[in-house]
Amino acid sequence: MALPMEFWGVEVKAGQPLKVVPGEAKILHLSQASLGESKNSKSSDSVPLFVNFDGQKLVLGTLSPDKFPQLAFDLVFEKEFELSHNWKHGSVFFCGYMTVVQEGYPFAQIYILMEFIHQLDILCAWT
Amino acid sequence: MALPMEFWGVEVKAGQPLKVVPGEAKILHLSQASLGESKNSKSSDSVPLFVNFDGQKLVLGTLSPDKFPQLAFDLVFEKEFELSHNWKHGSVFFCGYMTVVQEGYPFAQIYILMEFIHQLDILCAWT
Amino acid sequence: MALPMEFWGVEVKAGQPLKVVPGEAKILHLSQASLGESKNSKSSDSVPLFVNFDGQKLVLGTLSPDKFPQLAFDLVFEKEFELSHNWKHGSVFFCGYMTVVQEGYPFAQIYILMEFIHQLDILCAWT
Amino acid sequence: MALPMEFWGVEVKAGQPLKVVPGEAKILHLSQASLGESKNSKSSDSVPLFVNFDGQKLVLGTLSPDKFPQLAFDLVFEKEFELSHNWKHGSVFFCGYMTVVQEGYPFAQIYILMEFIHQLDILCAWT
Amino acid sequence: MALPMEFWGVEVKAGQPLKVVPGEAKILHLSQASLGESKNSKSSDSVPLFVNFDGQKLVLGTLSPDKFPQLAFDLVFEKEFELSHNWKHGSVFFCGYMTVVQEGYPFAQIYILMEFIHQLDILCAWT
Repeated sequence: MALPMEFWGVEVKAGQPLKVVPGEAKILHLSQASLGESKNSKSSDSVPLFVNFDGQKLVLGTLSPDKFPQLAFDLVFEKEFELSHNWKHGSVFFCGYMTVVQEGYPFAQIYILMEFIHQLDILCAWT
Repeated sequence: MALPMEFWGVEVKAGQPLKVVPGEAKILHLSQASLGESKNSKSSDSVPLFVNFDGQKLVLGTLSPDKFPQLAFDLVFEKEFELSHNWKHGSVFFCGYMTVVQEGYPFAQIYILMEFIHQLDILCAWT
Repeated sequence: MALPMEFWGVEVKAGQPLKVVPGEAKILHLSQASLGESKNSKSSDSVPLFVNFDGQKLVLGTLSPDKFPQLAFDLVFEKEFELSHNWKHGSVFFCGYMTVVQEGYPFAQIYILMEFIHQLDILCAWT
Repeated sequence: MALPMEFWGVEVKAGQPLKVVPGEAKILHLSQASLGESKNSKSSDSVPLFVNFDGQKLVLGTLSPDKFPQLAFDLVFEKEFELSHNWKHGSVFFCGYMTVVQEGYPFAQIYILMEFIHQLDILCAWT
Repeated sequence: MALPMEFWGVEVKAGQPLKVVPGEAKILHLSQASLGESKNSKSSDSVPLFVNFDGQKLVLGTLSPDKFPQLAFDLVFEKEFELSHNWKHGSVFFCGYMTVVQEGYPFAQIYILMEFIHQLDILCAWT
C-alpha cells in the first residue's frame, strides 16, 4: 500500500543552491532547517537561509551556531523551488515530508456518485 | 490537477504596509515572519509586527536581529488584511500557504446524496 | 460561501480580564500571545498569562519584553473562557482562529445514507 | 451537538504526580507546559518534566523560570499516563485538548454502504 | 475500538544508535527530543542529533543542557530509520506518535461505490 506521507531530507552545501521539484501531484512540507557540525565556525556566525520560488527570493530565517542551531518551518511547496545559504563552515540540513495529493479527492467520490445517479436515471427510464 | 495548497511569500518593506487579499474561497495560512539581511541594523533593534484586520490593529509579535530573527505563526486570514512594520534597516519576509476551500465540501456530497434520494423517490413513485 | 476558518484576535488590557464566548458550534483555536508596544516597561518584566476555564485558573505561559515578547499556543476552547494578565505597561494581544464545526459531519452523511436505505426498504416493499 | 474537541488543563504540584486517563474512545493532545508563579524560586532552577507511560519513564523537557518558563508539545495519549516534576517552588500547568474519536469513522460509512448493497441484493432477489 | 493515534517514546543512550521500524501501514510522527538528566554534564555541551534514513545521514538539530534542553520536530517516518547522538553524559528522549494508515481510505469507499453501481447494473439488467 502506498503511504500518504514520506520523510524528506536534504543536505545543502555552502554556495551550492539546491533545486527541489516536488513532482506531479505531490506537495513538499518543509518542517525544519539545522546547521551541520563544523569545527571551524565562529559561534557568532549569522546564516541567513534563502528560498527562490517563482522568481522571487525570500529570506526563510537566520541560523547561528550559538543562538539558533535549528529553525522550525510550516511551509509547503507545490512546485519547483531552490534552497540556498552562504555558511562557509558547513552544510545546512533541511527536513520535512512529501505528501501525495490523492487525485480528484473528494471530487472522485462526487463524480462516482453522479455516475451512480445517472445509472439510476437509466434504471428509472427502463422500469 | 489543481493542488489544494500553494506556497505564499511576500516581502514587506519598512513604512510600506502591504495589503493582502486571499481571494474568493481561499484561506491564507500565515506561518512565519523573518527579518531580511541588513548591514546597518543594530542587533538590539526591536521590530514589532502589526496586522490590520477588520479595522483592528494588533501586534503579531516582535522581531530583533540579535534575539528573534524569525517568528512562527499559526494564523489564518479569510479576507483582506494588512501587514506592516517600522524596521528602518530592511525588509520583513512573511511566508505561509494558500489553501483553496473546496466549494461545498462536504455539503456537495450531502446535496448529491439528497438528490439521489429524491431520484429514488421518483423511482418509487414510478414503479 | 461560508469559510470554515476565520481570523480571530483581541487586545487584553492590564487588569481588564476579557471573557470570550466562541459561540454555538464554534471552536476557538488560540495560536499566540504577544506583548504590545510600551515605552515605560522594564525589559525584565515578567508577565504571566492566565486563563479561567470552568472555574479553574491556569497559567498559560509567561511573557517578558526582553526575553519572550511572544508565545505560541496550540489550544482550543469550545466554551466560555477568560484571558487575563497583570502587565502594567501595556496590552497583550491574543490571536488565533475560529472554526465552525460542521453540524453533524460526518454523522449527517451517515444519517442521510440510513434515510436512503430506509427509502430503499420502502421501495422493496412496494415493488 | 457534541463538539469534537475540548480544552483540557491541569495543575501538577511538586511531588504530586498526576495520573491522567483520557477515557474510552478519547485521545488527549498535550500541547504545552508552563511554570506557575513563584515568589521563592531561583530563576536558574532547572525543572525536568517526566511522563510515565506503559511502565516507561521519559523526560518530556526541562523548564526554568529564567530561560524556559514554558514549553510546547505535540504529543497524544490514548491511554493512562502520569505527569510529574520536582520543582519545589510551585506548580507546573499542562494544557491541551481532548478529542473524541468518532466511532468507526470512516468504517461506519463503509459498513452502512455494504448494508445498503446487501439491501439491494435483497431487492434484486425480490424483483 | 482501535484508536488512530498512539503515544510513542524512546530513550536513546549515548553511542547506542536506535533503529526504529514503524511497521506495516504505520507512520511515525516524530515530535520532539529532550536531554535527560545528568549530573556530570557541562551546561555548554553541544549535542547534535542524527537520523539515518535510506542511507543518508542528516543532522536533526543540536541540543545543549544550557541553551536547548529540548527541540520540537514535525517529521514523519514511514519506514526504518535510526536515531543517534554522542552526548557522553546522558540519554536523549525522543517522543511522538504512531498513526495507523487506514487501508485504502478513501479508495475503499470508492471501490465499494463502484461495486454498488455494478450491483445496480445487474439490477437494471434483471428488471
